[in-house]
Amino acid sequence: MSWKVQSNATDINTLLLEESLFFNGNGYIGIRGNLEEGLPKHAKTIRGSYINGFHDIVDIPYGEKLFAFPEKQQKLLNIIDAQGIEIWVGEDNYREKVSLHSGEVLDYTRILHLDKGITERVLHWKSNKGYELIVNFKRLVSFHTRELFHQFITLTPVSKDIPIQIVSSVNGDVKNFADKDDPRVASDDEKRLSISNLSWTDESSFVEVQTKSSKLHAAVLSTVSVSSESISYRYEINDGASIQTIMKMILNKEMTLDKRTFIADSTRYEDLQGSLLAINNKTASLSFSELAKLQQEYMASFWNKTDVTIDGEDQIQEAIRFNLYHLLQSAGQDGKTSIAAKGLSGEGYEGHYFWDTEIYLLPMFTMTNPELARKLLHYRYSILDSARERAKEMGHKKGALYPWRTIIGTECSSYYPAGTAQYHISADIAYSYVQYYLATNDKSFLKDFGTEVLLETARLWLEVGHYQHNEFRIDAVTGPDEYTAIVNNNYYTNVMAKYNLQWAHKFSLLIQEEDPIYWQTLKNKLSLDDSELERFLSAANAMYLPMDKTLNINPQDDTFLQKEKWDFEGTPTEHYPLLLHYHPLTIYRYQVCKQADTVLAHFLVEDEQSEYVMKASYNYYEKVTTHDSSLSSCVYSMMGARVGYLDKAYDYFIETARLDLDNIQGNTKDGLHMANMGGTWMAIVAGFAGMRLKENGLYFRPQLPKQWDGYAFHIQYHGQLLMIRNQKDSFIVELLSGDQVDLYIWDKKYTITTDNSLVITN
Amino acid sequence: MSWKVQSNATDINTLLLEESLFFNGNGYIGIRGNLEEGLPKHAKTIRGSYINGFHDIVDIPYGEKLFAFPEKQQKLLNIIDAQGIEIWVGEDNYREKVSLHSGEVLDYTRILHLDKGITERVLHWKSNKGYELIVNFKRLVSFHTRELFHQFITLTPVSKDIPIQIVSSVNGDVKNFADKDDPRVASDDEKRLSISNLSWTDESSFVEVQTKSSKLHAAVLSTVSVSSESISYRYEINDGASIQTIMKMILNKEMTLDKRTFIADSTRYEDLQGSLLAINNKTASLSFSELAKLQQEYMASFWNKTDVTIDGEDQIQEAIRFNLYHLLQSAGQDGKTSIAAKGLSGEGYEGHYFWDTEIYLLPMFTMTNPELARKLLHYRYSILDSARERAKEMGHKKGALYPWRTIIGTECSSYYPAGTAQYHISADIAYSYVQYYLATNDKSFLKDFGTEVLLETARLWLEVGHYQHNEFRIDAVTGPDEYTAIVNNNYYTNVMAKYNLQWAHKFSLLIQEEDPIYWQTLKNKLSLDDSELERFLSAANAMYLPMDKTLNINPQDDTFLQKEKWDFEGTPTEHYPLLLHYHPLTIYRYQVCKQADTVLAHFLVEDEQSEYVMKASYNYYEKVTTHDSSLSSCVYSMMGARVGYLDKAYDYFIETARLDLDNIQGNTKDGLHMANMGGTWMAIVAGFAGMRLKENGLYFRPQLPKQWDGYAFHIQYHGQLLMIRNQKDSFIVELLSGDQVDLYIWDKKYTITTDNSLVITN
Repeated sequence: MSWKVQSNATDINTLLLEESLFFNGNGYIGIRGNLEEGLPKHAKTIRGSYINGFHDIVDIPYGEKLFAFPEKQQKLLNIIDAQGIEIWVGEDNYREKVSLHSGEVLDYTRILHLDKGITERVLHWKSNKGYELIVNFKRLVSFHTRELFHQFITLTPVSKDIPIQIVSSVNGDVKNFADKDDPRVASDDEKRLSISNLSWTDESSFVEVQTKSSKLHAAVLSTVSVSSESISYRYEINDGASIQTIMKMILNKEMTLDKRTFIADSTRYEDLQGSLLAINNKTASLSFSELAKLQQEYMASFWNKTDVTIDGEDQIQEAIRFNLYHLLQSAGQDGKTSIAAKGLSGEGYEGHYFWDTEIYLLPMFTMTNPELARKLLHYRYSILDSARERAKEMGHKKGALYPWRTIIGTECSSYYPAGTAQYHISADIAYSYVQYYLATNDKSFLKDFGTEVLLETARLWLEVGHYQHNEFRIDAVTGPDEYTAIVNNNYYTNVMAKYNLQWAHKFSLLIQEEDPIYWQTLKNKLSLDDSELERFLSAANAMYLPMDKTLNINPQDDTFLQKEKWDFEGTPTEHYPLLLHYHPLTIYRYQVCKQADTVLAHFLVEDEQSEYVMKASYNYYEKVTTHDSSLSSCVYSMMGARVGYLDKAYDYFIETARLDLDNIQGNTKDGLHMANMGGTWMAIVAGFAGMRLKENGLYFRPQLPKQWDGYAFHIQYHGQLLMIRNQKDSFIVELLSGDQVDLYIWDKKYTITTDNSLVITN
Repeated sequence: MSWKVQSNATDINTLLLEESLFFNGNGYIGIRGNLEEGLPKHAKTIRGSYINGFHDIVDIPYGEKLFAFPEKQQKLLNIIDAQGIEIWVGEDNYREKVSLHSGEVLDYTRILHLDKGITERVLHWKSNKGYELIVNFKRLVSFHTRELFHQFITLTPVSKDIPIQIVSSVNGDVKNFADKDDPRVASDDEKRLSISNLSWTDESSFVEVQTKSSKLHAAVLSTVSVSSESISYRYEINDGASIQTIMKMILNKEMTLDKRTFIADSTRYEDLQGSLLAINNKTASLSFSELAKLQQEYMASFWNKTDVTIDGEDQIQEAIRFNLYHLLQSAGQDGKTSIAAKGLSGEGYEGHYFWDTEIYLLPMFTMTNPELARKLLHYRYSILDSARERAKEMGHKKGALYPWRTIIGTECSSYYPAGTAQYHISADIAYSYVQYYLATNDKSFLKDFGTEVLLETARLWLEVGHYQHNEFRIDAVTGPDEYTAIVNNNYYTNVMAKYNLQWAHKFSLLIQEEDPIYWQTLKNKLSLDDSELERFLSAANAMYLPMDKTLNINPQDDTFLQKEKWDFEGTPTEHYPLLLHYHPLTIYRYQVCKQADTVLAHFLVEDEQSEYVMKASYNYYEKVTTHDSSLSSCVYSMMGARVGYLDKAYDYFIETARLDLDNIQGNTKDGLHMANMGGTWMAIVAGFAGMRLKENGLYFRPQLPKQWDGYAFHIQYHGQLLMIRNQKDSFIVELLSGDQVDLYIWDKKYTITTDNSLVITN
C-alpha cells in the first residue's frame, strides 16, 4: 500500500481538495486533478493547467503609492484547459453523462501511483436507464516528454450494446481563480488570455493563446484516438475559443481512448504549432503503456536516490513519499524556473517563487538530486541582474537585493513590511549556494555562478548595516516571522548575513587560489577591490547578535522582548490564522510569532550559539508561536530533536507530515504547501537523524522516535550515494556508490567505505 | 499696503500657484482663483470649486489587502464650475477674447483685500484690432450668505463703441485633478459626478449633479445681470452638462455685470432648487456693494479679535494676515465639518481632515474665536461613533480610535504605517478639548461633549498599552514623524496619552462635582465604572517616557538612537523631500525626521521635562530633521524661542511665514498648507510671546526678535479680550473687554483689569 495514495471520495468539497492532492506535473507543466467529466454547476472548483513561470504582467494598485513600490507584478496564468472528456451513454434522445453526481456510482476509487508517476480513477457506474460500465481514467504528465499531458481511458461494458458519445474538449476560454478576501490568493480575475490561433484537423486540435500584457504565447496540440472501429467524428467550435471533438460508437467490448495534449509556450519555442506537431510525431510511435513505462523508469531512478522509509507508521510512510513525489512534480528543471509556493498544483500566491525554495526545498534536492538542485540555484543566478537593479532602487549603491516574491526577477510584493523588508532572502539564497557547495564540493558551479551571487549579496549587507560601538548592526528589516515587521537587529537576519559575509570571503579566497585569472576577470566585472573583501570579514566578525542575559535567549530583535505577550487564552480557535482576523498593527504590538524565526536561525547556523541558549530560546518562542505559517512546524520538529525534546519533535513532525493530505490549514484547495513538504524531509534527515552540513564535514545526531521501529533515507555527499538507517538497535550507514566518506556521528568521526558499512549498535 | 496682497503675474506657472493663493472661501464653499476667462489650452490649471465635506465614496485598491484595511475612502469632489465669464470684443466676424495671453496687456494687477474679504483683478487691455478697455473683476464668497459666490465685473471702455459679447457659463462636466506620481495628490481622476437636473430661465441657470457612489447632490443656481440697456440674450446647452448665457451689447460707457452663484448640497438642504431660489430671492434686494459691505463688517469683527501686527517687516506683516485670512476662509463653521489639510483651496490630500486641525489650527481659533473653535471640536464629537467602531475593528474591546484621515469619520488612510498607526491623533483630539476648556472655562461644552471624548480616547490607551516592570508602555505606533514608523514607546505618543489619561480623570471629577446626575447618566451610557477611572490615573502615573541619560534627551522611541544617522552630506538637494526619492524602508532605517516629533511633544506638554532636556533634545533632533513636512518649521521656531535660541526661532519663523506666498515647498498649486498657516500664528503667540495654557493659568515668556520693532496680537481668555504688545522697550497687556485676568509672565503672577493695563518695561 505504501506506494499508493487512495481515495473513494465523491463529495464536492473533498473533490476540490483532491484537485491539488492528485495533480500531475513534471516541473514544466502542472495539471490539477480536475475531473474529466466536470462537476455539477454549483460545485466550487479550481480548474487549472499551468506552465511553470508562464505569466502575465499586471498592475499593482495602491491607495497611496510611495517611492519604489513596484508598479507591476507577474501572475501565473491558468492556461488552456485540455482536461475535458465527457462520456455520455444512451440514445440521442436521452443521454446521461457518466459522472460521480448522476446515475448510480457502484464503485469508485482514485489512486495516485507514487512509483509509476501516474494517477488513476476507476468508476463502476450505472445510468438511470440501466446501462452499466466501468471507466478507468489514467493520467500522466510525462518526465520523458516534458510537453506531454497524457490521458488514457478504458471503457469496459457491463451491460450490453451501450450507445456512447464521447466529447473531448480543448478550451481556451479560461481565467484565474480569485478570492478578494484572502490575501494569499489573487483578488483579480480579469481575463488575461486571448485566442491567437485556433485550428483543427481530423488528427489534432490546436489552440494558441496570448497574454494581455506580457505578450507571451502558450499553445496546446491535442490528439484523440479510440480503439473502436466504427466511430463517427464531429467537431464543434464554441465562441472561437474551444474545440470539441465528438465521437459516437456502440460499446460492446473493452475500448480505449488515448488523448495526448502537448503543451508549450513562447519562452521555450518560437514556432509553437510546428514544434508541438514535431513533438507529437516523435511520440506518436510510443503507446500509452510504453510512455507509462518510461515514466516508471524515471520514477524508479528518482526513488533510488530519494526514497525515505518509515517502519511502524503506514500513514506517515504514505505522507513522506507523497510529499517527495509532489516536490519532484513541481521543481523547475530548466535553470530558468524554480518552485512556486504551491508548486504547479494551484494558483495560491500567484505562482511566485519565495525563499521557500532555498531554505525548505533545496536541502532535499541538494542532498538527493544535486543536478536538479543546481538548476534551481541557477535560476537565482539568472535573475541576479534584477536583484542588482532592485538594490539600486532601494537606495543602495552596490549589491543585490533579491525580490521577496517573483517569477522573472522583479519584485512582486505590494505589502513591503512582509515583503521587500524581508531582506534575509538574499542571505537565504547565499546560504543555499554554500550548502550546495558543502554537499557536492562542486567548485566549477561555485566558480561560474556561486561566487558572484555571494559577493553581490554580501555587498548588500555592507550597504544595509552600520557600525555602532564596534558592533555591526542591521536596522529596519523584517525576519521570517511575519507577525513582527520592520525591526532592528533581527537575530535571524543578522546571523544569516554574517554567514553570507563569511562565505563570500571564503569563496573568494578559494576561487582566487583555484583560478587566479578567472578571479581577476570576476573582480573586474564587479569592480571589486580587495578592501571590500576585508570589510566583509570585519562586518561578519563584528556582527551584533542580540542576546538577553537574563533569559539566556536570543531576542528575536531589539524590541521583541519588551512587548506584551499575545492573549492566547482570550483568542478563540476560529481566530486563527491571526492574519485573517487582526490588523497587522495589532499583531505587531504583541509577542506573537507566525512561524519559527530565531529557532530557524539556530537550525541553519547552529554553531553561533550554545546548546543551552538554543534550548532556552526554543522554550521561549514555542510559547508565543502560532504556526499560522506552514513553514513553522517542521522547524520546531527539527530543533525539538536538536535540543532534546524528541516527543515534541515527533508531535510537530506529525503536524507537518500530513498537512496537505489532511488539509490541516484548510487551504490545500489553492495548492500544496511545498515548503512544508520539503520540511517533512528535513524533519527526518536534519531532525531525527540530526544531519548538518558544515565546512569540515557531514554531521549526524541520530535519534529514533519511540513510535517507530526505524527509518531510512538516501543522501548524496561529494558525489557518493549513501543509505542511512536508524533502527531500534542500530544506526547503519552504507555507501551505495563511491569510495569513501568521512562523517561525524554525535561529534565523533567515522570513515565509511563501500566494503565497510558503519554499524553503531545501541 | 498691509491689508493687500498684490500680484502682477501673467505667466501661467504663477497663475497656477495663484489659483490657491487667491482662492475665495467661507468655510462652507471654496472657489479657486481661476481666471474667469480661462487659460490657453496648453496651460496647467486646477480649476476647482468645493463644498466643505462634499465627497464621493471610492474604493481603495490594494495589491495585498490585509484584515481591517479600509475598503472605501471619501474623496472631496470638485463640483460644478460657475467661474466662467468670457468677454469677447469685436464684430461677429472677428472676435477676440479678453485674456492675459492674447491681444495686448497694457496693465494688470491682482489684489486680495484682506480687510474687505474680496479679491480683485484689474486688466487694461487692447485687442489686435485696437479695441481698448479696462476690466475689473471682483469676487467674494460671502460670510453673510454662506451659499453665495459673487462675481462683479466692471467694463470701462477706453476706445469707443466696442462690440462686446459676454459668455457666462455654468459647467457640470467636471472632474478632479490627478497626479499618480505624487502620493499627496489623488491618483484617480475618474468622473464621479453626473448631471441630475439642468434647467434655465431668463432669470437663472440651474445645474444639479449627483455623486457616483455616495449619492450626494450638489447644485448651483446662477444669475447674471448687466447694467447696459440694450442687450441680446442667448442660451447654449452643451452635452446636457453646461449652460452658457451669451450676451451681446455695445460698450460705450462703463458697464457692470453681476453674476451670483448660489451653491448648496443635499447634506444641508432637501430641495436644492427650491432652497437656492429662496436664497437668491432673499439676497436679490442687496446690491453687490451692499453685500461687499456686509462682508467687510464680518471681516472687521474677525480682525478685531484676531489681528496680529508686526512692526518692522512688511513682508511678514503681509504673510501673517494672509495666513489668518485663509484659515478663516477654510474653517468649517457648522459643527459637521472641519478644516481640510489644504482648506478649501485645493484638492491635495483629497479634502481629508487630519490632526492638523487640533494641533496646528485650533490653538489660534481657541484663543481668538472660541465660538468657531467649538464648532471644530464639535465635528470630532460628531464622528465619535465611527472612532468607537474603528477601535473595535482594530481589535480593541473599548475606546475610540480616531481615523488618521477622514471626512465623515471612517478611516481613509490606505498606507497604515503613516496612517492608522498614528494613534496619537486620538490624544491630539483630547488635548484640543482640554486646551479649549483651559482657555474658555466652558464647562457646559465640557459636559455635553468633551468628557465623553476624553473618556473614550483614554480607554483606548488602556487597550493599547501594557505594564512591564511597573511602567506603562505603548508599542507599535507611529508618532508625528512619518520618517519613522511602527515603533515602541514613541515619546510624543506616550506623553500625549498620559495627558489624555490625566485629563479624562480630571474632567470626570469635575463633571461628577458639577452635575452628579448627568455624570451618572454618562457613566451608564458608557458602561463606565469607577475602577476604570482609577486605572486611567495609574497608567498616567506609570507612563514610560523614554530618556537617554548619556545624551540627556528623550529618545524619539525605543530604538531611534541605535540607528545610523542619515547621510545628509551625500543627499543632493533635489532629493528632498525624501519621501519622493527613497523607499520608506530606506528612510525608516536611519535617524532622520520628516518633522518635529519629540520637540513638538516638548511644546505641547512642557512640564514633563526640564529645560535642560528640552534644549539638549532640540539640539539633537534639529540635526536630523529635514522639515520635509510643512508641520515642522513652526515647531522649531516655537521651541527655539523656548530654549533660548531666538535667532533660530526667527529663522524658522521666516520659513514658515511665507511658505505658501513664496511656494517654498513647490506644491502650493495643490492647495495652501493650512497647518503651517496656523503654525505662523503659534510661532508668534506661543513662540515669541511664549504663551502656554496650563491648569493653573495663562503663561507668557515674551521675547522680541531683533529684526522687529514690536509685535501685537489679540487673545480671548475666559471670555475676556486681551491685546498684547511686545515692543523694544516694553511688554503691554491690555484688557479690551472683561473685568480681570491673572496671568504669569516669566513665571511671575500679574493681575490685569480694564482700567489697569500691565506694562513691563525693560
